[in-house]
Amino acid sequence: MKFGGTSVADLDRIRHVATLVKREVDRGSQVAVTVSAMAGETNKLVGWVRELSPMYDAREYDVVVAAGEQVSSGLLAIALQNIGINARSWLGWQIPVRTSSMHASARIEAIDNAQLDERLARGEVAVVAGFQGIAPDNRVTTIGRGGGDTSAVAVAAALKADRCDIYTDVDGVYTTDPRIVPKARRLERIAYEEMLEMASLGAKVLQTRSVEIAMLHRVPVRVLSTFDPDKGGTLLCDEEDIVEKKPVSGIAYSRDEAKITLHRIDDQPGVAAKIFGPLADAGVNVDMIVQNVSPDGKKTDLTFTVGRSELQRALDAIEKARDTIAYREVTSTADVAKVSIIGIGMRQHPGVAQTMFRTLADKGINVQVISTSEIKVSVLIAEEYVELAVRALHSAYELDAA
Amino acid sequence: MKFGGTSVADLDRIRHVATLVKREVDRGSQVAVTVSAMAGETNKLVGWVRELSPMYDAREYDVVVAAGEQVSSGLLAIALQNIGINARSWLGWQIPVRTSSMHASARIEAIDNAQLDERLARGEVAVVAGFQGIAPDNRVTTIGRGGGDTSAVAVAAALKADRCDIYTDVDGVYTTDPRIVPKARRLERIAYEEMLEMASLGAKVLQTRSVEIAMLHRVPVRVLSTFDPDKGGTLLCDEEDIVEKKPVSGIAYSRDEAKITLHRIDDQPGVAAKIFGPLADAGVNVDMIVQNVSPDGKKTDLTFTVGRSELQRALDAIEKARDTIAYREVTSTADVAKVSIIGIGMRQHPGVAQTMFRTLADKGINVQVISTSEIKVSVLIAEEYVELAVRALHSAYELDAA
Repeated sequence: MKFGGTSVADLDRIRHVATLVKREVDRGSQVAVTVSAMAGETNKLVGWVRELSPMYDAREYDVVVAAGEQVSSGLLAIALQNIGINARSWLGWQIPVRTSSMHASARIEAIDNAQLDERLARGEVAVVAGFQGIAPDNRVTTIGRGGGDTSAVAVAAALKADRCDIYTDVDGVYTTDPRIVPKARRLERIAYEEMLEMASLGAKVLQTRSVEIAMLHRVPVRVLSTFDPDKGGTLLCDEEDIVEKKPVSGIAYSRDEAKITLHRIDDQPGVAAKIFGPLADAGVNVDMIVQNVSPDGKKTDLTFTVGRSELQRALDAIEKARDTIAYREVTSTADVAKVSIIGIGMRQHPGVAQTMFRTLADKGINVQVISTSEIKVSVLIAEEYVELAVRALHSAYELDAA
Repeated sequence: MKFGGTSVADLDRIRHVATLVKREVDRGSQVAVTVSAMAGETNKLVGWVRELSPMYDAREYDVVVAAGEQVSSGLLAIALQNIGINARSWLGWQIPVRTSSMHASARIEAIDNAQLDERLARGEVAVVAGFQGIAPDNRVTTIGRGGGDTSAVAVAAALKADRCDIYTDVDGVYTTDPRIVPKARRLERIAYEEMLEMASLGAKVLQTRSVEIAMLHRVPVRVLSTFDPDKGGTLLCDEEDIVEKKPVSGIAYSRDEAKITLHRIDDQPGVAAKIFGPLADAGVNVDMIVQNVSPDGKKTDLTFTVGRSELQRALDAIEKARDTIAYREVTSTADVAKVSIIGIGMRQHPGVAQTMFRTLADKGINVQVISTSEIKVSVLIAEEYVELAVRALHSAYELDAA
């Protein structure tokens, strides 16, 4: 069971979480719980660190920030004991949760499950401080903002749990953002692959890394609401466990996009390396790429997208490499957004992309860049059309609730 | 260097503490710093624990409360780095500080100084989270409220430090409480033995346990003000390092007293064991004891004092043992206070106690119980006379500032 910051925001909510854990114990389950810091605490601690030093040491940042989960894990253990549940807290270094030494965004490398297994078998509930671990040199690490989901799934995988229940402030994964499409429906089930695309294409329900780990270890993950836990939820599962495969399961969007075009570059082998090498060196992630057909076979235009927050860095890197790349002009805009349709059923249903393009064309929305994979199609459009596009596609793929 | 909660109460004060540490580094010292939690944090965390469960698990209490020092140690390390000082934080389990497993009031048993020594030799400042350690089973312990002083002195002893500077909100140890006696003087030096008596008899400057450790390991401890660090301070040192030994160095008082009298008990061997056995079993500390001369050689009265917060527990224990003790009646009062004169010079100066009794008698103050050791005399008096008694004694022993 995993509870995020809003679920443990105050003592009343911690008591409520304790009753949810008790309910699971009373059903005969062995339970490990991971908790985030009480809502607001992490922001407070991060704020202090930043105020003291804009160029803070990430190792000390981790020491300060990990205190948040330490507090909430201890408090939940106490709340559980108070209602008669045998429980104890586990800090990252006690288990231990071994991570890389990339402080403030460490990767979990191994979780030693020996002690936890033994305690769980004795009927003790393990309350694990989420989001933290230790580096090879024994210093405290954190696995980055939102790493709570990842901790939970990694612990579930290490314990070979039958299920990992992620309690959050929404009651499951929806066909799209209900704030844009009131007719969005909760999905009973979603395949790992689909969820992975949804998360990386903009859906904020689960962290991408947590879905990767769940998929890798085949952990059945359930997303459900802390405040309304009996209202269904969504189960992440293998593709074969989904009986009716619609062509499109969900629609994601992201406004965190920017577009860059290099005009009149040489249309010859090796030019891509000259462009994307400097960008990679500058730590810029390039997402969608499209190269125009060259009319004269000599010069062409190349367009690609990057994260909006990386736009300036990308432009600087290109400017520095101007002589090598040999372009005539650079243009860029941040007024773009990416809209994606996702579905494992796409593999069996031809013409899915065509429906997308026609739907957008009917609404007069111009598609600037396209990128596809086996189970998704993404398009870049002007940001002002995002809501219109998402609503139109939601209807076109028959996802609207009755 | 040790900084308490008020010294690191907010980011500005943490920055100020960093400058004090830098000053010491710039003088060429190798520096280890221990810090308490930011003022108010510990109370907040303890309040949460108590609100969740009045019968909380002390092991979880320790997990929650130790987070306070974790935050302040990380923040101070960052503040130091920000002004160019090479520094890192050390949590109790990282050093490690090994303690007993008496959670919430553990005793420090060993501090492994190998890692710290090596880092200090490289010129790195060690910022140690005070007040915490680990039990033999690897769980987090805290060494009890006010344990920050004890941590600091224990770390200084382990590192064989040349000096342990305790920065606090007063600028040293005074002849008595300046709030009661405006003419109280700051002592340049005080012997460990005297400080130990002062601390255990009510002076709040240093924790008793920290003075014991300082005395045992001969750590030169200096008490000085965070906010006015150049204003002298007081040095704790060996008796032989104090040249002019006055008969009385200081006057302590404590209102945390209660008096119990058992009337008409048997005046025969073994009766004391019958009384104090049950009290010890109930965890009550008995302080002063006086037994009246028995007029008929058969029945007598016995009076003793206990901490005011333990009065009810003591009375309950005595009531339960009524048949074994065989007393006629019990009377008790909490309207008493203990006033003590302390001084290593007492050994060489006869008549010191006599001056105390005469001074009190001159003011019409009745002495209810007396207890003495080689370097102190304590008397129990009615609480309402405390200020009068302390002021009169301060003058009588010529301690008033000119």
